[in-house]
Amino acid sequence: MAVAWGGICCSKPPCLNISVRKATYTYGNLVEKKAFTVSVPSRDHAAAADYFGVASGRDADKFAAAGLTPVRSQLVDAPFVDEFPLVLECKVVHVAELGLHTLFVGEILDVKAEESCLDKDGKPSAELVRPFCWAPPDNIYYAFGESLGRGFSIGKNLSAGAR
Amino acid sequence: MAVAWGGICCSKPPCLNISVRKATYTYGNLVEKKAFTVSVPSRDHAAAADYFGVASGRDADKFAAAGLTPVRSQLVDAPFVDEFPLVLECKVVHVAELGLHTLFVGEILDVKAEESCLDKDGKPSAELVRPFCWAPPDNIYYAFGESLGRGFSIGKNLSAGAR
Repeated sequence: MAVAWGGICCSKPPCLNISVRKATYTYGNLVEKKAFTVSVPSRDHAAAADYFGVASGRDADKFAAAGLTPVRSQLVDAPFVDEFPLVLECKVVHVAELGLHTLFVGEILDVKAEESCLDKDGKPSAELVRPFCWAPPDNIYYAFGESLGRGFSIGKNLSAGAR
Repeated sequence: MAVAWGGICCSKPPCLNISVRKATYTYGNLVEKKAFTVSVPSRDHAAAADYFGVASGRDADKFAAAGLTPVRSQLVDAPFVDEFPLVLECKVVHVAELGLHTLFVGEILDVKAEESCLDKDGKPSAELVRPFCWAPPDNIYYAFGESLGRGFSIGKNLSAGAR
């Protein structure tokens, strides 16, 4: 499925959260398997990612329709998308019923990335993965744009001014 | 504070999650007040937002140092940033201790936006708010870039092909 709401939520142990409606096919799988993977598409896969949010796995083989390849994770009982550049394999460690959506927190057991997306330190770089985000109410998929500067850096002169 | 990890996590009731380390000054305030606001900076405020992540409210008046104005929320016991274009006022409805970070879920009681950021339906548009994101390990603040297309739309032809 395409998950609209989610992101990293803990640095140590590394965890991420996703929110899923009970009505979805994925919800039942999540509750049963207590595990999931997150396959991060590059901007080249925007149409396929959108399709995963349009169709349901109850009615269609979404991998086949999108021309993508499911791979069985060796760590958790869930498939990931072979063609997507970044994959996170997670076991569910916390569940919270919030309303229309249920929040699942997964501990990230492994991160797999295409070699072409690794920076000089061997970490998957956003600039090379080229992910995108979905912004409501615009309902637009936006690519990452220009750099506004480095973290823990561009605001430092304000700190000096306050002393 | 600047929150690295967070986002929307439920559509109804509208909720968002933020993750905060116990060592921060904000953590104590959150636990005591059971409320928080999220002030979303535009790209013009990237340096101020970075500064909020560099300094601690224990040691400095961060509003004064950044030249920004705190406003008392009428709905929750927390201030917001007057100059930032989008503000969400939240009461804590769920807390999960995950490890280094604690995840707080807030129900969004109100959304305040600058009039100049509203689309034709009166909703705050990402294109007009002009937010940005922080991407590790690059450690870069990225502006939103070009549109890759509309949600629930650019993948629809894949659905037709699958029938």
